[in-house]
Amino acid sequence: MTAESEYQILGKPGKLVEGMEKATGRARYAGDVTLSGMLHARPILSPYAHARIVSIDYTAALQIPGVVAVLTADDLPTRNQTASTRQSTVLAKDEVLFRGHPVAVVVADSEAAAQDGATAVLVDYESLPVVANVDMALAADAPIIWPNGLPKEGADLTAAHTAVDAGAETNEQSSSNVHEETHIQRGSVDQGFAAADAIVECSYTTASVHQAYLEPHAAVAEPELLRNRLTIYTSTQDQFGVRNQVARLLGLSRSSVTIVPMTVGGGFGAKYGIIEPLVGAVAMAVQRPIRLVLTRSEDFLTTTPAQASDITLKIGARRDGTLTAIQAKITLDNGVYPFTLGFLVGNLIAGYYKCANLQIDCSEVITHKPQTGAYRAPGAPQATFALESSMDELAYELGMDPLELRLKNAVESGDPMGEIGVWSHIGLKQCLERARAHPLWAERANVPNQGVGLAIGGWPCNVTPAAAICRAESDGIIRVYVGSVDLTGVNSTFAMVAAEILGVTLDQVEVVQGDTRSGPFAGPSGGSQITYSVAAAVASAAQAVKQQLLELAEDHFEARIDDLEIKDGNVRVRGVPDRTISIGSLATIAETKRGGPGPVIGEGRTAITNSAPGFTVHLAQVRVDPETGQTSMLRYVAIHDIGFALNPLLVEGQIHGGAAQGIGWALHEAMHYDEHGELLTGSLMDYDVPHIDTIPSIEVILVDNPSPSGPFGARGIGEPPIIPGGAVIANAIRAATGVRVTELPIRDETLWRAMQRS
Amino acid sequence: MTAESEYQILGKPGKLVEGMEKATGRARYAGDVTLSGMLHARPILSPYAHARIVSIDYTAALQIPGVVAVLTADDLPTRNQTASTRQSTVLAKDEVLFRGHPVAVVVADSEAAAQDGATAVLVDYESLPVVANVDMALAADAPIIWPNGLPKEGADLTAAHTAVDAGAETNEQSSSNVHEETHIQRGSVDQGFAAADAIVECSYTTASVHQAYLEPHAAVAEPELLRNRLTIYTSTQDQFGVRNQVARLLGLSRSSVTIVPMTVGGGFGAKYGIIEPLVGAVAMAVQRPIRLVLTRSEDFLTTTPAQASDITLKIGARRDGTLTAIQAKITLDNGVYPFTLGFLVGNLIAGYYKCANLQIDCSEVITHKPQTGAYRAPGAPQATFALESSMDELAYELGMDPLELRLKNAVESGDPMGEIGVWSHIGLKQCLERARAHPLWAERANVPNQGVGLAIGGWPCNVTPAAAICRAESDGIIRVYVGSVDLTGVNSTFAMVAAEILGVTLDQVEVVQGDTRSGPFAGPSGGSQITYSVAAAVASAAQAVKQQLLELAEDHFEARIDDLEIKDGNVRVRGVPDRTISIGSLATIAETKRGGPGPVIGEGRTAITNSAPGFTVHLAQVRVDPETGQTSMLRYVAIHDIGFALNPLLVEGQIHGGAAQGIGWALHEAMHYDEHGELLTGSLMDYDVPHIDTIPSIEVILVDNPSPSGPFGARGIGEPPIIPGGAVIANAIRAATGVRVTELPIRDETLWRAMQRS
Repeated sequence: MTAESEYQILGKPGKLVEGMEKATGRARYAGDVTLSGMLHARPILSPYAHARIVSIDYTAALQIPGVVAVLTADDLPTRNQTASTRQSTVLAKDEVLFRGHPVAVVVADSEAAAQDGATAVLVDYESLPVVANVDMALAADAPIIWPNGLPKEGADLTAAHTAVDAGAETNEQSSSNVHEETHIQRGSVDQGFAAADAIVECSYTTASVHQAYLEPHAAVAEPELLRNRLTIYTSTQDQFGVRNQVARLLGLSRSSVTIVPMTVGGGFGAKYGIIEPLVGAVAMAVQRPIRLVLTRSEDFLTTTPAQASDITLKIGARRDGTLTAIQAKITLDNGVYPFTLGFLVGNLIAGYYKCANLQIDCSEVITHKPQTGAYRAPGAPQATFALESSMDELAYELGMDPLELRLKNAVESGDPMGEIGVWSHIGLKQCLERARAHPLWAERANVPNQGVGLAIGGWPCNVTPAAAICRAESDGIIRVYVGSVDLTGVNSTFAMVAAEILGVTLDQVEVVQGDTRSGPFAGPSGGSQITYSVAAAVASAAQAVKQQLLELAEDHFEARIDDLEIKDGNVRVRGVPDRTISIGSLATIAETKRGGPGPVIGEGRTAITNSAPGFTVHLAQVRVDPETGQTSMLRYVAIHDIGFALNPLLVEGQIHGGAAQGIGWALHEAMHYDEHGELLTGSLMDYDVPHIDTIPSIEVILVDNPSPSGPFGARGIGEPPIIPGGAVIANAIRAATGVRVTELPIRDETLWRAMQRS
Repeated sequence: MTAESEYQILGKPGKLVEGMEKATGRARYAGDVTLSGMLHARPILSPYAHARIVSIDYTAALQIPGVVAVLTADDLPTRNQTASTRQSTVLAKDEVLFRGHPVAVVVADSEAAAQDGATAVLVDYESLPVVANVDMALAADAPIIWPNGLPKEGADLTAAHTAVDAGAETNEQSSSNVHEETHIQRGSVDQGFAAADAIVECSYTTASVHQAYLEPHAAVAEPELLRNRLTIYTSTQDQFGVRNQVARLLGLSRSSVTIVPMTVGGGFGAKYGIIEPLVGAVAMAVQRPIRLVLTRSEDFLTTTPAQASDITLKIGARRDGTLTAIQAKITLDNGVYPFTLGFLVGNLIAGYYKCANLQIDCSEVITHKPQTGAYRAPGAPQATFALESSMDELAYELGMDPLELRLKNAVESGDPMGEIGVWSHIGLKQCLERARAHPLWAERANVPNQGVGLAIGGWPCNVTPAAAICRAESDGIIRVYVGSVDLTGVNSTFAMVAAEILGVTLDQVEVVQGDTRSGPFAGPSGGSQITYSVAAAVASAAQAVKQQLLELAEDHFEARIDDLEIKDGNVRVRGVPDRTISIGSLATIAETKRGGPGPVIGEGRTAITNSAPGFTVHLAQVRVDPETGQTSMLRYVAIHDIGFALNPLLVEGQIHGGAAQGIGWALHEAMHYDEHGELLTGSLMDYDVPHIDTIPSIEVILVDNPSPSGPFGARGIGEPPIIPGGAVIANAIRAATGVRVTELPIRDETLWRAMQRS
């Protein structure tokens, strides 16, 4: 929790404004939207990971009562039928490229009839050779998935998550399944290793992990024939991005498409648009509102999980702990379309510690699987698992305290972030110092089968220009209008910001979340940026309203503006208790007075220059059962530099959620595909997400290291908490058992076998 | 049509942006709203004009399949059950006060079931004495309708229509059925008449006239249990006023009620809230969305037609035409709740002409009929029929040209408007001079049974502070956000204003009409004020966006802002044709550039000080059939000082519509009630609205007399066109037949009888 502050409202826990709606089941999700004349769509997904579509026979489907239409790629008004991203994949044409690739859509007047119709559609496939994993993709005789290069297409989604552009894609012509290579070099690793007193080298693998949000992808699209417009109600993190993508694919202007972001039942990077172009295209084709909600299995099959990784890491250090060289060879499995992420994985490995000699090489590989995508701090759990496991091992090798080793080498403000700029203002060392003082670390004892691990994590965080509108109503309510999606309670924090500035209670503020038409503009709710980017616009709009209210009161009281203050929803003359007027009365004057200033309304526009990276240190205490290899979590401490926690309640909630997902990466979750590209973990019976009984109580420690550029000193907090999970638990297991695990998730059996060997 | 102007877009005909929706039946009206779980309501209306409700038995109704509930006054969560305005009448309690007074509501899952239910409800009434008209109300032994005075309650709606406050209502205790008296006095009428060379005295009556919009009152209310909020989709001219009224009656805060103004199928002053409190209260009571659409007959029975009037007018003038005295005695029939209008009728009679001696006395009378209400220029058709008929008669008496008589006495800018201030800046004389030059007037010949009449009209027009937001989108579209209701095509004009200022085409501008939650604030669409009040805010917001775009371009081109201009949607450096960047590209820079100005969005706030009154002169040529007394309209000319016609197409449309309604007042329309207060004209079979074949082609002449305070010189135009209709046609008939008709509407039989007498 933060220390006492100068603020009345900020820095203190503020309730989640939509909490009651969610708790009582009254929040409206995309799947709840019902429109007059709405039809239901059900997709037909490819059972093959790679096949030619020979024919699609839907005669029987059309006989089923209630079925209105069956549509294939040729029936849709889409511009790009050959996609180069999952986001632009509408329906497969001629060829399917991953298990779950949508082939056709059945539209009916009920969901059940549409499903019956889907079952009755006969698709004849001719199976083709499948490249199911990285090994198969890199084999000498591997079929080339995109022999003529990828179809050229739009922007890279990863840019939305980081401070960094992904750079242009160049490998349009391919003679291999490697679609992107990243090379980072600094100094000479040969000289670095030669100067080292200790060298640690190890290979690490992580599985593909699904974002496993509660609410599957869902959208309702409503066409407007007369103006050739389209409105889509959807579960998305990125309303403006989805708008642009739908507009581009359907050949509409951006302003002709309105995305209405509904309550999101979890996104974690996966809701940047999957089904919206399909639902929109079907709606435009049949000129009726269309609803599509994926089943859990369809969602697992057709969305964009995180990359599986293979990282071989070699680090060297002098006896005093000074790092002399870091060398890494990284392979990422991207699925069938590229989701370029190597530059991030590489630069994070290169960016946590000061090191004069670096050589990092990353290959991103195409396989016949669903394209991978963003998952909370994309690339960072993979990079951090490798680097922080190796740092731990290096500490053992040097006989040094692992915390002191990190503190010695930790990057500071202004240090390079690999090759992509510098860390603007960071608090890694402060977090490490806080960890050093924590009893779990300071007093860790040698208990058999128990151990305490430590790992760091860092994330550049993003920033996007944003605008907000603020208005004072005649009943004294303050309304704040934003165009950002409330994924994580940000609206509750915006209400606090406005209340703080305007001197009103939280109940007097209502945040109105717009759609892409009503706006105002804001970036996507990803990249840990919304509070950071939008709160400043909200503050600026509220400040404009405050100024207008004070000017109205100046006129009303015939007092000097400097003598006025706003307290408890009233403007008053300082020191004259009975000279007071409510905000509602001032707003009424403004709405009625001829020759006055006009209604009270103000805008705020911001475009913060620097991002505010978020660093963290996690501590985990585990017990490993020597008989079974089962790891139990005993304690977990998450120390985060949050700059200034505008709303500590939500910040803690973010950290709890992220840490739990980190534990999922560490001990539970994996998307398993067989050699035919078939998904073996396509339901929540097979895919192991952590349950409440496997997550320990998570102790959160907030380090106040105010960002000089963030509103009130705030930083992004969405992504950092997930990062250290794999590494910190692996390091705790190492402390408990002496065994270094190198594969995520850590399976009991694998660990037990390793314990037998050691 | 206006003269050529300095503008690219303003002053030229601009299409109605929603014209295609309306023409193709795709516009969404309140009755088209369908919500999930929505129920249908049907009202039960009193068959008596005055009765005690003995009992309401709805046992049988509840047996009807589909009927969900029957609600009476006690079942509704309303605060005021004894209303003092039609707008606050929810359901009658204990007593019904007019034929059509709603007594109960049946709610069912279909409209048909609700109607079946309504038929099955047995209401036992005990009839009470009825005061059906002014004569009965003023009789010595008349029952006093409100012996204890009216229940005290909110504001007077007439204030929304004029530049004038109605003043406080004082007659809370009543010993008569006169609820309000207005007295205007200037100089001495006795001395004035003594100085007169000619005196004309006559009594005039006008019938109550219904606004006869195409779309009956309709509303759908949706409750939100968790936050105790209510949203109402409705056909209204006054979204913020209806919000306040619903909030007050239901005991909610204003911000808890959202009024969503749907496409309005005609309002003309009658859609300031009638059924919204009822529909809202029912929705809150049953916690389901509720839809109510009145039938045509229900609409005639329960809404607020214009006042019937009785005006005795005496005017005197010197031989040269100079008016020496105006004396009037006015009686208005207000229905059962007061709609105070006498001050307006009186001040218009006192306000068209310069006259040193005035005595005007007005009584407003309560009767057991629906409360009357605003109808386009409320009170002005009645006042003008009397005054302009008498002025015509005076011209005959003096042997003077009626136009010259008016020109001699016409008020000018700065002259008093009766007793309620001065006419700020007016063009009455300019209109008269234009009429003098018109061939229909200048070349009028003596053709048997044909005649040309002339009459003037004037209206103060209103003004309300307003705000607007403007935004530039990344595809170059300019969006303008307003909170005003588009009753008459104002959005099309706002689009022109923004396009003009920003140098884009009309197709590049989209006007987004908000609800009371999304705003921004604007006054009601009544009082001829929206274009006048809101266009200035739109212009100011567009100007802010222009400035932001130019500053972005300044940075982009490294040019001085003074060297930049916006043309055809691009910003360019003057004189350097290839240095050009689109608005969309500049908006994209603003939405992405760190350290930039932030997204392009600006607000405009205005509160114009002076209203811009609208004056008009109409000319009508009629032929009267000597055998039948039937009047045929031959030509009609409407000369209007519109200041500057931002969009001449819509201004002409307004004038056509208003003039047609004026012809309705003159020759067609009357609400007839019998001595029991029963409405005899409760359908469009019985109530005679003018049809297309009875309206001549209307020639429109726009006089450019720019208002110094209106945006681009504009004035209000909504109300003036209806005003002279009754008088100009009566004057034309006088010219054709020598007969002075004194009763509106002018019936063939009445005229024929008068012709026999003359």
